[in-house]
This record gives sequence, structure tokens and C-alpha cells, in this order.
Amino acid sequence: MDIKHSAQTARSASILLSAVKTGQKNKALLEIAKAIESRSGDIVEANRKDLAAAAKNGLAEPLLKRLTFDEKKIAEVCMGVKSLIKLDDPAGRTISITELDKGLMLYKTSCPIGVIGVVFESRPDALVQISTLCLKSGNAVLLKGGSEAEHTNEILAEVISGAAEKTGLPKGWLVLMHGREDVRGMLKLDGLIDLIIPRGSNEFVRYIMDNTNIPVMGHADGICHVYVDGRADMAMALKVLIDSKCQYVAVCNAAESLLVDKRIAARFLPAAQKTLVENGVEIRGCAGTRKMLKAVKAAGDRDFGTEYLDYIISVKVVDGVEEAVEHINRYGSHHTDTIVTADRKTAVRFMESVDSASVFWNCSTRFSDGFRYGLGAEVGISTNKIHARGPVGLEGLVIYKWKLTGKGHIVADYAEGRKKFKHKKI
Amino acid sequence: MDIKHSAQTARSASILLSAVKTGQKNKALLEIAKAIESRSGDIVEANRKDLAAAAKNGLAEPLLKRLTFDEKKIAEVCMGVKSLIKLDDPAGRTISITELDKGLMLYKTSCPIGVIGVVFESRPDALVQISTLCLKSGNAVLLKGGSEAEHTNEILAEVISGAAEKTGLPKGWLVLMHGREDVRGMLKLDGLIDLIIPRGSNEFVRYIMDNTNIPVMGHADGICHVYVDGRADMAMALKVLIDSKCQYVAVCNAAESLLVDKRIAARFLPAAQKTLVENGVEIRGCAGTRKMLKAVKAAGDRDFGTEYLDYIISVKVVDGVEEAVEHINRYGSHHTDTIVTADRKTAVRFMESVDSASVFWNCSTRFSDGFRYGLGAEVGISTNKIHARGPVGLEGLVIYKWKLTGKGHIVADYAEGRKKFKHKKI
Repeated sequence: MDIKHSAQTARSASILLSAVKTGQKNKALLEIAKAIESRSGDIVEANRKDLAAAAKNGLAEPLLKRLTFDEKKIAEVCMGVKSLIKLDDPAGRTISITELDKGLMLYKTSCPIGVIGVVFESRPDALVQISTLCLKSGNAVLLKGGSEAEHTNEILAEVISGAAEKTGLPKGWLVLMHGREDVRGMLKLDGLIDLIIPRGSNEFVRYIMDNTNIPVMGHADGICHVYVDGRADMAMALKVLIDSKCQYVAVCNAAESLLVDKRIAARFLPAAQKTLVENGVEIRGCAGTRKMLKAVKAAGDRDFGTEYLDYIISVKVVDGVEEAVEHINRYGSHHTDTIVTADRKTAVRFMESVDSASVFWNCSTRFSDGFRYGLGAEVGISTNKIHARGPVGLEGLVIYKWKLTGKGHIVADYAEGRKKFKHKKI
Repeated sequence: MDIKHSAQTARSASILLSAVKTGQKNKALLEIAKAIESRSGDIVEANRKDLAAAAKNGLAEPLLKRLTFDEKKIAEVCMGVKSLIKLDDPAGRTISITELDKGLMLYKTSCPIGVIGVVFESRPDALVQISTLCLKSGNAVLLKGGSEAEHTNEILAEVISGAAEKTGLPKGWLVLMHGREDVRGMLKLDGLIDLIIPRGSNEFVRYIMDNTNIPVMGHADGICHVYVDGRADMAMALKVLIDSKCQYVAVCNAAESLLVDKRIAARFLPAAQKTLVENGVEIRGCAGTRKMLKAVKAAGDRDFGTEYLDYIISVKVVDGVEEAVEHINRYGSHHTDTIVTADRKTAVRFMESVDSASVFWNCSTRFSDGFRYGLGAEVGISTNKIHARGPVGLEGLVIYKWKLTGKGHIVADYAEGRKKFKHKKI
């Protein structure tokens, strides 16, 4: 089936799905969890094929690990699907009611977005998470996973859509795309697809944005900062710095840059260097940093705009919170930035002026995550400035529609002064 | 000043503006209204220049009327600005609070989007409305109006930014763009501009979308439907039909298409024809319609996808609500569609399944408007499926950020099992 035809089917399914009640969606989710469990043998076998091919192609160890989908992973994703059942349905909520006039009632109600295209990396568990998040929020979904996970994704998509349809959900709400050709085709379907969520490298996200008119929700870099203010508690600052930088270096919410207030730099930097070096982190410093620390490489302008995703950190001495904010807004990626300070006023200023999805005070940048925020699962992290920002859970997969109910009301009566609007909020 | 430099200044201003309190923004709005009033002589004079040039260039009468900005218009816009003062500030609201753990509090708070680019038609009052909506919501704005209104826009922008800066608002928050070159330049500034709102023809909106990576909020066509169900009250259906079609034909929320349930068609269509013809409306009908009505032109597939913006309506006989919904989702533009029926179940089904920003029951499509919805002024109508849908007022000009405050909390404690998340909603 070509991608346009699949998308048309998904569009029709999305209309039906938008009217499905919460109870029925939850029933489908339970059926999906059961089906994954009962088909676990076949799923693991399919995954073994992918793993064998990947090993043959010399895939690196960390990638092989991400690709692995064994009994343990299956138990985890099934638990995830079941926990989704307990979350509130984000669609069908009444956001506001206004009485425009007697008998003329305006309801703003949340509803699914429609058809969502998601392109994700090689982890097969992402397929389960994304498709079930879409189902719970009432959206149809076109999915494209990594080609290394081909067999695993194929069987998972089959099991999930089969189980959902068995409970009466519309056919075709879940489409598994194949190959780059399908992705290229999808990018042109702006009448059929409402939102694209690309997960992957910056180049990939940029490529998607450059080649489609469909709205794209995603994040480019994760260039996160730790700013240590003049009034910081030194021990706390060190703790937050090390956690932000080292707790898991290869992820977007890890810190890439340390800014230090000049009022505390002479005291803080030597301690920071000691701990960073102990943790295997290489420091690249500005001129001010290098005056205070020995054996530190120079950081260029490019370093401050780099997402290392590695045991490297750029360090700059700044003249207080204003310069820190300016630096972050200029070099950062609007993802997550934290200030360490004992001064509330400075913290508030930082959090108001740093133009990032997540702005923290006295805690690690690594908290920036859908699970840690209590959103349940996460469909991705957005550095967009519209629709959804930061970790995106179920709430990011709905929009609203306006429902107006009258008794034959016409505009002419208001335009010609026979009637007047009340605009009473209920 | 080139557009990139202006946008950079606007970006810096937007950061400062995002921290300005509601009271100060309201003070600036009052100052703006006063300044427009006190400079009304100069404004009217500038407008006369534009009118004279437009008359010389043979601009059509309706366009000249839109371009006119006289004492009456000035009084109207000033009243609009003052009424904006009374509206709640959409930024700075706490949307949710979650206690992630003891002392680790997550706040989701609304905030301005940042820098918004708006390209609008020739009405100078649009400049006043849009710039003050942006100010109230804390956004910097780049504006480009119709070239016919050049002198009027120039003085309005000067008066508005001057008055705002006098009250202490940051310089450069309002930028007036000149010529198509500025607009083309703006489309490339995806690091500096967060959202573009184009108002104008469908071709123009399409051009903008095709030439930028910046999110675009706008609407293409307004192909609105009136569906008369088998269980409609005939008199009500006629009233709603005539208001939807004729109350103002040249606007996006006017009806372009009538769908009639076959169960009522033989009774309803002759009456509808009589009233439509009396109101000067030409009917283009499907085969079923033409069997029942004399002297009706044939409607082709193209008619059903056409926004006439004129005294023409396409008519189709359908086999109940399912076919009506399918037709609307296929040929409509996801703007506004209404059903006339006495049956609640059918109405609910229609409103749930029609994939439009506004779905109405027993009232005219012409109600689809920011003022009539009670939103105050309106920055535009969106047929997007993300961020904001339908009439967009202040609420559509904000997004949110996540603020997390801790006491030195680090992720390692949770990853290594020493602490557990509470995720308690406050």
C-alpha cells in the first residue's frame, strides 16, 4: 500500500477514533498489553533476527543494547501500557464554557490532533510507547522506526493494531512506514497529516523541517547550562554540576556548559576542576577560567554552541546573572538551564529571563524529562515555542475545538442591534 | 536598519518584555491610547496621503473604505486598546504545580511566545490591534502592513512604540517592516522569530508556508458548510442558512456550501431556493438537487472545494449525517461548519466527527469570530491543528515554561534508588 493511501486510511480512522470513549480506549490498551505478553515468544524471535543482522553489520555495542527487546523489555513496556490506562484522557475535556447570549453556548473542548507522523530511533520500545500514547489521546499515527529494528517493529505494529482492532477500534489507525521513500512521501501529505514528531540527530530534524509544510515538533540540540551565582552554596553547586554533567553524558538534558559568576570564580573553579577531573571530564575554558585554572584547554566561540554529549564541558566566567542570561539565550538551545544561588530574587530573574523550555533553580538539568515531571510516558522533548514545550506527554497530543450550540441564533440580530452579547463565563 | 538587526533587537526586547508586570503593560496600553488620540490630526493627515495615492492608482471602493482611518476609526481603535487593559494577562499564570519530591517543586507557567512576525492586509486598524495584543501578552512583534497604507502605518507604529517606550517598555519591541524584501528576509530568521501569522489570500499564506522553517499560524480557505438534517426545523434551517450565506458574503466564516439530508430535501430545497434567490444568491447544485429544483446550474467537484466569497452557493443532497460529515471533512477547510437538527444525538455526532476548528449546532457560521466568542480582539483565525485553533485572541500568543525549584536535588539519588518521586499534584 502506498503511503498516501495509508495516510488517507489513517485520516478516516482518526475521525472515528476521535469519537471513541475513554473506556473503550482503555480496553484497547489492556488488550494490547495482553497481546504483547502472549506473543512475547514471536516478538523475541523477531528481535533476534534484527540483532543477528546488526551484529553481522558491525553495529556498536551501545546500539545493539538499544535494539535488544527481550522478555525484560517486554515486561517493562507492558507495565508502561498499563500505567497509561490510569492516566486521565486528555481529549474530551471541557476547557471553558461561555454563554454568548441566552441559549447560545460556546464550549471549548479538547480533542485529538488527528494524524501524527513519528520518526524515531532504533529502540523498539519507542514504537510501543508512541503508538499507545497516540491511541490514548485518540490520534492515528504513522510510524517509522530504525531499519535495524525492522523485524521487531513489524511484529509489534501487527500485534498492537491487531489487538486494538479486535476491541472495535477503527482499522488503519496505526501505520508502519517502510524505508526512506515512505518518510519522503509523508512529508508531502500536508492535507492528511497534522503533525510530525522527528526524533533523532539534529541534522535529521533539520532535514525534516526543511522538507515539509506540516508542523514539526521536536528539538534540535540540548545545550544545557549550569550557572553558579555569586551567592551559591559551593557544595550544592558542585553536586548539581556533577549530576548535570556526568549522571548520563549522552543525553540531551545533560549540561554542556558551566557559567561561573566572577564573584565566586576564584573559590569555585578550583574545586569544580578537581571534581570534574575526578569524574573524567575535560574542561575547555574562557580566558578568565584559564587565568584561574592550570592545564585547561581554550574554549572558542564554537565550544559554547556545541552539544558534546561526552565527558567535556565548556566553562565561562561571567559578570553576574545578566551576562549569564544573555550568554544562555545566545548560545543555548532553549532546552534546560539551571541556576545555583541562595538568592531568591536572582533565581526569579534567571527563571523569567532565560528563554528555555525548562528553567531550574538549585537542581540538576537531568530532571528535565517526562517521567520525572510526572507526565507518564513522553513522546519527545520540544524546543518549539508554540503548542508544547519541554517534555511532551499526552497533553501535547491534543488540541481543542469550539462547539457552539444555539436555537436558531443568527448574527444579523447582533449586527443590527436587536440583540446583545452577554459573554458570561460559566 | 536591516531586518536581521531589527529582529535581533526585537528578540532582546522580548526577553525584557517577558519579565514586565501586568500593571506596567496596562500603563503602556493606556499611554498608547492617549497618544493615538492626541496625535489624531497627524494620523488622519498621513492617512489622507495614502487615500489620495490609492485613489490615483484606481483602488476599488471597498478597498478605499478599508484603508480609511479617520476620527471615527481612531475612536474605535482607542476603545479597543482600553478594553484590552481590562482583559486578564495571559502570561504569568500558573497552569499546574507538582511536588516531584520533598522540596522539589515543578511549576508550569504561561509565558509570551517571544517574537512574532505578522503580515496583514491594508486596514491600518489591524496594526493597532495586533501590536497591542502582542504587548499585552508580552511579545515583541515585527509588522508588515499593506503598502497602500504606508504613511498611516508609519505614523501609527511610531506613535505606539514611542508611547510604550515612554512608560519604560524596552526599545525595539515593535518593528515596522518595509517592502517585500523585509518579509523575505524575515522568513529566513528562524533563530530569531518564533511564529509567523500571515493574514491575506490563500496564495499568500501558502507562499509563506513554502518559504520558511518558522511555525506559521493562519488559515487557508474558509469553506464553511450548513448541513440541514432530516430532523431540522424548516424555518430555523432557512434562517440559519440565509444568515450564514448572506449576512456578509466576503468573509471567511460565510457559508459556501449547503448539504441537505435526502429525507427532507424535497420539502426544504424549494423553500431554500426561493429565499436564496430573493437574497440574490446563485445556486449550483448536484444531480439530486437539480432533479428537485428548476433553473439550477450544475455544481462540479470543483465547486464543492471553492470559497466563492460571493453570492453563490453549492448545494448537495446527502444520505444523512454520515455522508454530510464525510463530505465536509473531504471538501471543507476545517474552519466552521454547522448542523441544523432537532435531534441531539445527530448533532453530537456531527460536532464530534466534523474535523473543524468550530462546529455549530442550530446557529449561523458567522458567529465564528474572536469578538463574538468573547475573546476580546482577535489576531487571526487559525485552521492549524496545533497550538491554537479557530479565532485566536490573547491566549494564542502565549506558551508555557517549566520552572523547577529544588534544594540541591540531583537525579543520581532517584536513579540509584536512594529517593523516590512523589509526583503529587498541588
